Amino acid sequence: MTSRTCLSIILAAGEGTRMKSTMPKVLHQIAGLAMVAHVARTAEAAGADGVALVVGHGGDQVKAAAERFAPGAKVFVQTERLGTAHAVLAARQAIASGHDDLLVMFGDTPLVEAESLALARQKLADGAAVVVIGFRPPNAAGYGRLIEKDGRLVAIREDKDCTDEERKIGFCNAGLMAVAGKHALDLLDKVGNANAKGEYYLTDIVEIADRAGLAVIATEASFESVLGINNRAELAEAEAIWQKRQRRQAMLEGATLIAPETVHFSHDTEIGADVLVEPNVWFGPGVKIADGATIHAFSHLEGTNVGPRAEVGPFARLRPGADLHEKAKVGNFCEVKKATVEKGAKVNHLTYIGDARVGAGANIGAGTITCNYDGYSKFFTDIGAGAFIGSNSSLVAPIVIGDGAYVASGSVITEEIPADALAFGRARQKTLPGKGKELRERFASAAAAKKAGAK
Amino acid sequence: MTSRTCLSIILAAGEGTRMKSTMPKVLHQIAGLAMVAHVARTAEAAGADGVALVVGHGGDQVKAAAERFAPGAKVFVQTERLGTAHAVLAARQAIASGHDDLLVMFGDTPLVEAESLALARQKLADGAAVVVIGFRPPNAAGYGRLIEKDGRLVAIREDKDCTDEERKIGFCNAGLMAVAGKHALDLLDKVGNANAKGEYYLTDIVEIADRAGLAVIATEASFESVLGINNRAELAEAEAIWQKRQRRQAMLEGATLIAPETVHFSHDTEIGADVLVEPNVWFGPGVKIADGATIHAFSHLEGTNVGPRAEVGPFARLRPGADLHEKAKVGNFCEVKKATVEKGAKVNHLTYIGDARVGAGANIGAGTITCNYDGYSKFFTDIGAGAFIGSNSSLVAPIVIGDGAYVASGSVITEEIPADALAFGRARQKTLPGKGKELRERFASAAAAKKAGAK
Amino acid sequence: MTSRTCLSIILAAGEGTRMKSTMPKVLHQIAGLAMVAHVARTAEAAGADGVALVVGHGGDQVKAAAERFAPGAKVFVQTERLGTAHAVLAARQAIASGHDDLLVMFGDTPLVEAESLALARQKLADGAAVVVIGFRPPNAAGYGRLIEKDGRLVAIREDKDCTDEERKIGFCNAGLMAVAGKHALDLLDKVGNANAKGEYYLTDIVEIADRAGLAVIATEASFESVLGINNRAELAEAEAIWQKRQRRQAMLEGATLIAPETVHFSHDTEIGADVLVEPNVWFGPGVKIADGATIHAFSHLEGTNVGPRAEVGPFARLRPGADLHEKAKVGNFCEVKKATVEKGAKVNHLTYIGDARVGAGANIGAGTITCNYDGYSKFFTDIGAGAFIGSNSSLVAPIVIGDGAYVASGSVITEEIPADALAFGRARQKTLPGKGKELRERFASAAAAKKAGAK
Repeated sequence: MTSRTCLSIILAAGEGTRMKSTMPKVLHQIAGLAMVAHVARTAEAAGADGVALVVGHGGDQVKAAAERFAPGAKVFVQTERLGTAHAVLAARQAIASGHDDLLVMFGDTPLVEAESLALARQKLADGAAVVVIGFRPPNAAGYGRLIEKDGRLVAIREDKDCTDEERKIGFCNAGLMAVAGKHALDLLDKVGNANAKGEYYLTDIVEIADRAGLAVIATEASFESVLGINNRAELAEAEAIWQKRQRRQAMLEGATLIAPETVHFSHDTEIGADVLVEPNVWFGPGVKIADGATIHAFSHLEGTNVGPRAEVGPFARLRPGADLHEKAKVGNFCEVKKATVEKGAKVNHLTYIGDARVGAGANIGAGTITCNYDGYSKFFTDIGAGAFIGSNSSLVAPIVIGDGAYVASGSVITEEIPADALAFGRARQKTLPGKGKELRERFASAAAAKKAGAK
Repeated sequence: MTSRTCLSIILAAGEGTRMKSTMPKVLHQIAGLAMVAHVARTAEAAGADGVALVVGHGGDQVKAAAERFAPGAKVFVQTERLGTAHAVLAARQAIASGHDDLLVMFGDTPLVEAESLALARQKLADGAAVVVIGFRPPNAAGYGRLIEKDGRLVAIREDKDCTDEERKIGFCNAGLMAVAGKHALDLLDKVGNANAKGEYYLTDIVEIADRAGLAVIATEASFESVLGINNRAELAEAEAIWQKRQRRQAMLEGATLIAPETVHFSHDTEIGADVLVEPNVWFGPGVKIADGATIHAFSHLEGTNVGPRAEVGPFARLRPGADLHEKAKVGNFCEVKKATVEKGAKVNHLTYIGDARVGAGANIGAGTITCNYDGYSKFFTDIGAGAFIGSNSSLVAPIVIGDGAYVASGSVITEEIPADALAFGRARQKTLPGKGKELRERFASAAAAKKAGAK
Repeated sequence: MTSRTCLSIILAAGEGTRMKSTMPKVLHQIAGLAMVAHVARTAEAAGADGVALVVGHGGDQVKAAAERFAPGAKVFVQTERLGTAHAVLAARQAIASGHDDLLVMFGDTPLVEAESLALARQKLADGAAVVVIGFRPPNAAGYGRLIEKDGRLVAIREDKDCTDEERKIGFCNAGLMAVAGKHALDLLDKVGNANAKGEYYLTDIVEIADRAGLAVIATEASFESVLGINNRAELAEAEAIWQKRQRRQAMLEGATLIAPETVHFSHDTEIGADVLVEPNVWFGPGVKIADGATIHAFSHLEGTNVGPRAEVGPFARLRPGADLHEKAKVGNFCEVKKATVEKGAKVNHLTYIGDARVGAGANIGAGTITCNYDGYSKFFTDIGAGAFIGSNSSLVAPIVIGDGAYVASGSVITEEIPADALAFGRARQKTLPGKGKELRERFASAAAAKKAGAK
């Protein structure tokens, strides 16, 4: 990457009324990350060392969302909505601080690739004053066309203002621009509002720069990458594009996704090699899957580490703080939260493990519940290595179950169990011959009476 | 809508042998509603005030399915299968009752839009005697072409009878027609069967009307909307089209569907604003989701109300009669049936709540089961506001648990608990030091012996 | 099928480095079956009575995977990688044994259809010496073109060697070939390596045979069917194509798949007529579904028989050895493994049934667990016909519960229950008035103190 300094101006003032939401548009998420954060992340990846966020309202929220990738981002409020050049100039103070490159980006255009921005910056480094990022849609109708002449971009023409010849041009304006810092304010200040709407259009700097003898050129980005989001159907489209990219990447790197279109990644999911992911898996934020692990169908993970050759699901739910070590197993209808399942331990069926440690090689029977909550506080369950917890047991935390301890099925455990001890906490069976039939007959006649009464 | 009266004749006599089903074809469902009911609903939406169902067999079932949207629909049995005009004439009695407009619709063409029918009716109101609904498929080969002349429709030509010039026409016959009531019987009675198959074709009335100097025109519907269903692959295609429409609508109205292609709506699903629906959600019939609710991944709902800002799933199953109030939560591996979960109450893990009320703010521990069935009758469980049900408890209905009562984990509760009382129903723990190890060794050697014996 | 003998030579020596896997490429699976096994199965379906596997490494594994469809397959190791003709000649011994037809197939091209091979064999029977299987991709660039002259195939020309005229040809080389056994060795031995890479190309036999006056022709297969797999993204593509074929087949044969794109079949799934499959169902290997059964959404089945009109799910997991008889039901959050659920029996909610028989008409309450494992051995639970197992019960195996027996909710059952008996295994409830409130206050102040302490 170049050593030039770079300011990314992210326009995020759009009201987004078509989102029909109480939330600022740019906070709607793709892959679990606000759109504006995607944009900030891309700016960072393209080498931006400063970010100016131009917002309409909700500035604090927008800043908070973007900050992870744009530490020290400055917020500028665009109070009136007088066009894109006006929006950019809301960040005049940041522009005036003198970066080599400016990148004008949009908070609702989250799929732009860092490579596209890096290319535009390279053109600035090569001497261009203005670089416009264009794209080639399947059907150009409605888009502003990029009018080029001898490799220079001479104008951006709105569809309605195009000549028949210009309308045949397939190369269109994506809105994104890179501008040489040293010319930026001068160019922007020359933009006028002598047009039908009385607005200041950023696109006008193309002709202004061209007339001033500065170099103006266009670069190309893919159609998909410049998709702007105006409603939730478009948001879903962008999500789908993002997911498709990510799934492909995971497969090329050595994970098997049997039905990739049913696997949901988050912005920070990490998947190792020779991992098998069956259909219908949800990776929420904060998931890392180590090499050789298997994630069976219908699994839902967030904030979770899955160790090497560990096995998850089907129908497993791993919540934040779940940490599965090597070859650990968490099976169907099991929930694990804030708990370590150590090497080779098995939590296979209908179990809730919360605020706990399951020691290496321990076996947790079907229907086991760690009773970790008293309505006010959470308590810890410590299960030792090699312990065997009989099915349908209740482990009332805080509780310690020693290494190699054995809990009989159906027990309620309230007191510490030393290592290698056996614990029962259940009533003895009483069997009443013939009484089952009697009960059955009584229930049947009660049901019949009820039914008769209901008529 | 016009004040003209309108009879919808729904042709539903097709045997549907390619469906390979014991059920009449038009009863196969899209979005949980029989195809014929979709057609009746569309007719109603287009202003039809009378419906004639022409059936081959299963007339009562077909009528029952359609009746919701076609109260008072009359059933006519077409005993022989002698062509579409013959089918329409099976409803001669209904036609003779003198509606202004007739709409000829098909029970196996369920995606027609009311707007298309309304447009055709408008053309009748404007003076047309016959209006044929056409469509433009990507490839017209095989379809009957609409031959127009100066804005009039002069003939419908089968593909095989077309001249080379006619075969270039992309506008095709969808089968649907609107006919002016006053001309209908006259035109239909003139249809002959002097053709290869000896059948009476409805399409013939185009030329008959044209020759009689009556106005005949064609209107256009979308290709997708006139899809006819002949096998279950086509049924699935129609389902997919219907779902796509509905998902888009929900998103445009302000719901976020992260992966819309994985969300299944029913014909009557209602979704509020700022609702978040994660991937893989099934909305069966009778579901209403209030504003601001979240439906997590892998949830299955039917006959359920989800209140404002309530939270469901992942892996939740809400069955008919589930009623979640504001901010209520039903979490993973929980089933709720015929039960109210009041404001802010939590049913978070591995729980079955059936025939019950969970009072406001109550907390139901993991693994709780309402034992509502004795093999013959169902009984009610009433859980008071603010009650705390310890994990793995069994609540044996009929049972009342007072406000603020506390149930210890692992209890079997069979008697009423007064407000603010504490109830236990579990055995005390006994711990036998060293016995776990002993047991383990005994089990291990038994397993080894068994294995040796098996050789 | 012809009575001619046929040897299938399956080239499976590719290293598959782009798979990024420790496993030989051809062992990666589609629909739960290794690619090489798909190829062997297709060969078998096309009438091959002998199979030669040409491998690089992992020959035993490859043979084991293919053997099911290629009993007695012979493995030949290609030690050096000197081109496709060299690979085929690794099986010289098998070729020399004198089959009428040779089929050259590829272990990483798993979707080839038996019909395509059968057609090629037919051409051999009709007198051709070499038959090349071609295909027509949407864009031929990069593929070798099939150069035909008067119905004969005269050459296969690499894209880079094509004249402008040849480059317009859309008919391309799929790599698969059928060769008359009597000419095979003679032709193969004439292939030279006087080319840039110094390799022996199988495609050269086209010109060799043509020059020798033998009949060489091309037949056509579909583009999809000749997809070669080089990375896991392509593997997923092939899986998707396979699934699409299978889903369509199932629908045409009379199963309703509401959202076919979400249903996963295995290579051996059998689905009856009038079966309803809701969205998001996983059929692992070894599943048979009888007529009229319903598989609700979010179900995961493997090694399972589902009887006529039985009902499964939603959220059911049926593991190997699950056998549901007529009208049996297994509902939400239930796991059944190695167990028979007899006629009309119900396992409806949050239950684990493993190593068991559930007698006809028995009702298993919510939360029931068969405690089948002691950490070393598995034991059997036998539940009689018409038995009623109260909710949240633990059945400690080995255990017999007689016909019509009744188990009270929340019981731990450790001893045999005779027919029609009633059994309890639970503690009596104790209720302490006012103590719930006291406890709550104590817990609340402890939580407050903890919180204060944490500051």
